[in-house]
Amino acid sequence: MARIVQKFGGTSVGDLDRIRNVARRVKSEVDAGNEVAVVVSAMSGTTNKLVEWARDIGPLHDAREYDTIVATGEQVTVGLLAIALQNIGVDARSWLGWQIPFKTDDVHGAARIEEIQAEEIKTRLAAGQVAVIAGFQGIGPDGRITTLGRGGSDTSAVAMAAALDADRCDIYTDVDGVYTTDPRIMPKARKLSQITFEEMLEMASAGAKVLQTRSVAMAMRHNVHLQVRSSFNEEPGTLVVDEEQIMENQKISGIAYSNDEAKVTLAGLPDKPGIAAEIFGMLADAHVNVDMIVQTAATSGSQTDITFSLGALDLPKAESLLTEARDRLGFESLQSDSNVAKVSIVGTAMRSQPGIAKQMFEVLAQKGINLQVISTSEIKISVLIESAYTELAVRALHDAFTLETA
Amino acid sequence: MARIVQKFGGTSVGDLDRIRNVARRVKSEVDAGNEVAVVVSAMSGTTNKLVEWARDIGPLHDAREYDTIVATGEQVTVGLLAIALQNIGVDARSWLGWQIPFKTDDVHGAARIEEIQAEEIKTRLAAGQVAVIAGFQGIGPDGRITTLGRGGSDTSAVAMAAALDADRCDIYTDVDGVYTTDPRIMPKARKLSQITFEEMLEMASAGAKVLQTRSVAMAMRHNVHLQVRSSFNEEPGTLVVDEEQIMENQKISGIAYSNDEAKVTLAGLPDKPGIAAEIFGMLADAHVNVDMIVQTAATSGSQTDITFSLGALDLPKAESLLTEARDRLGFESLQSDSNVAKVSIVGTAMRSQPGIAKQMFEVLAQKGINLQVISTSEIKISVLIESAYTELAVRALHDAFTLETA
Repeated sequence: MARIVQKFGGTSVGDLDRIRNVARRVKSEVDAGNEVAVVVSAMSGTTNKLVEWARDIGPLHDAREYDTIVATGEQVTVGLLAIALQNIGVDARSWLGWQIPFKTDDVHGAARIEEIQAEEIKTRLAAGQVAVIAGFQGIGPDGRITTLGRGGSDTSAVAMAAALDADRCDIYTDVDGVYTTDPRIMPKARKLSQITFEEMLEMASAGAKVLQTRSVAMAMRHNVHLQVRSSFNEEPGTLVVDEEQIMENQKISGIAYSNDEAKVTLAGLPDKPGIAAEIFGMLADAHVNVDMIVQTAATSGSQTDITFSLGALDLPKAESLLTEARDRLGFESLQSDSNVAKVSIVGTAMRSQPGIAKQMFEVLAQKGINLQVISTSEIKISVLIESAYTELAVRALHDAFTLETA
Repeated sequence: MARIVQKFGGTSVGDLDRIRNVARRVKSEVDAGNEVAVVVSAMSGTTNKLVEWARDIGPLHDAREYDTIVATGEQVTVGLLAIALQNIGVDARSWLGWQIPFKTDDVHGAARIEEIQAEEIKTRLAAGQVAVIAGFQGIGPDGRITTLGRGGSDTSAVAMAAALDADRCDIYTDVDGVYTTDPRIMPKARKLSQITFEEMLEMASAGAKVLQTRSVAMAMRHNVHLQVRSSFNEEPGTLVVDEEQIMENQKISGIAYSNDEAKVTLAGLPDKPGIAAEIFGMLADAHVNVDMIVQTAATSGSQTDITFSLGALDLPKAESLLTEARDRLGFESLQSDSNVAKVSIVGTAMRSQPGIAKQMFEVLAQKGINLQVISTSEIKISVLIESAYTELAVRALHDAFTLETA
């Protein structure tokens, strides 16, 4: 007997038939003698519609009211799933964020979890009742509804698993696991049976959409045993595990990409100490997330160029902030390009095999792909390239690193 | 300066433009120096969709989950209206039933209000903030969401007005007041500037849909000053007042009708004491609401007939209950007819003018309309007729009692 948290996303609960299907998946864990808590998202499309209403009603935006509105999506799903479970003979009740309570700070729209009081739910799980928990939502210090931000249901599930001391947290989604890369652009992509937390974290932040970065970080911190699997078939999925649990990795684990990137180059900056801190401090204050940064050596003695990448959505804000500050920063020109993509290879194998970066650059060079920016971490190498080459780069790297075979 | 509760129904908040329109109606009361609490329903159509989902997901029905699901409709509206108000410079926040708290008993789907803790809202109203309150919903003794049943938002508004000691409770709707009868079938119908609580109560229970019976009863009990008015124009509406506030009524006030009626006749019943109590006790236990009852004098010495009317929706249940109990009750035959309508005239003038019933029956007889059942209260006379004659009866009575002129 184990205590399990199951999480089902928006497409898995997209209509009444799919909710009944989820109920059957829950029942099979109950029938196997397990205690089950289920965390669900809003029915797919619902959150988008609610967000659109909350935006369209007026330009002034109260994030507390926004949260009150969008949290209804999950509230509907938990009620429907609880009824669906009862209808197939499973004792179940719904739990809203404020009922648990699932306490967060007061940063509405992107709240951080502070404390989950799970004693009552533990008691009911032990008595055989399934807890159907609304993902994505909590209650702030002033008693108002908060939300965790997009993809927050993964985080809710992991946090509930930690609070419940669950033996496993299964993330059910519309893909059946974590792949070596996106199977839509590389048919030879292979499902991984295991991936380490660190790799999953790098894959998620490099653009792989299967799990939210924040939920992986939380799982790693609380040592929650994560599994990514399909809600539409019974195949085993991908286990996210500690590095010690994997014998030895000879290869990189996966290739991630992101097309939602942009690049900015500030040319002719005065080469003085503190100039980078000033630029990136200003952008950070405006909540512009800068990703990769390259500063070229000063060629004419007193001047330097800085190139950085950022999310394409943030480009207009960054451009206007930098243009306003041009006199103060003293750069000669600003060039921007949103026609770029980031391609990353991820794997703990890099730690022991220093030749991997060289191999990556050679493969891309052979295909005539120009590298605009490079950044590396201990287990990841990312390059910024012209976006038209994304698929070519992913396929070439997948072949070169023989990812189609385990 | 006054403290006002405004209530807007589903069609008044049916889309974003209408919600902005409601915000302007609220603002005009705020600009006039008033303290304002607004109670809103779900956007029209929303509740029906949620109810349909909750029914379709499975035949077993958990009313606690049903309430969790359907209460989201009002939750969306309060968030949107609060944002709309802020966007036109009005300080506002939304309040859900559990946040107030608006305490009810645990009869989910048809909960009764037990206590409203309105101190915090009073403080904020005094500080100039508009309270945007979700109608229809409350919180039960076990911390779960309850709903008051269909039309419950009127009741929420009146209850809030009582709890807030409001000077006025304005019910905004898609008609601009209470009419002498339904203007759709009698174009000469006249809007009443005033109506007494008792008359409004009789009109509502006789089928006039403008206010929910329960909300009128609560307003009468707590002496809440009700006004019914249009959310689409600025015309004064209809005030619901104490009888003492109306100088003298020479006429009946209105004509109501209901087509959702059915009639049952049990013929050849043994004429023994307690037989009526047995029949109607059994129906009441099954929550079948019986309206009008006629027992004909025993003709053959030991037998009697009983005819009663009930809501058409309850007819199948009543028929099967009575048929099952036939041997015990001992009747000879059961006839039913759902092709009937109830037409009622209402007015406190009846107290002082005994000839009104006679006049009503004469008017209907002149038109060749057969009266199947008659029932009277102190200020109402209702007749059950063949439903094809409904419009004819309403128009003839409206003319005969000269209701088109004040």
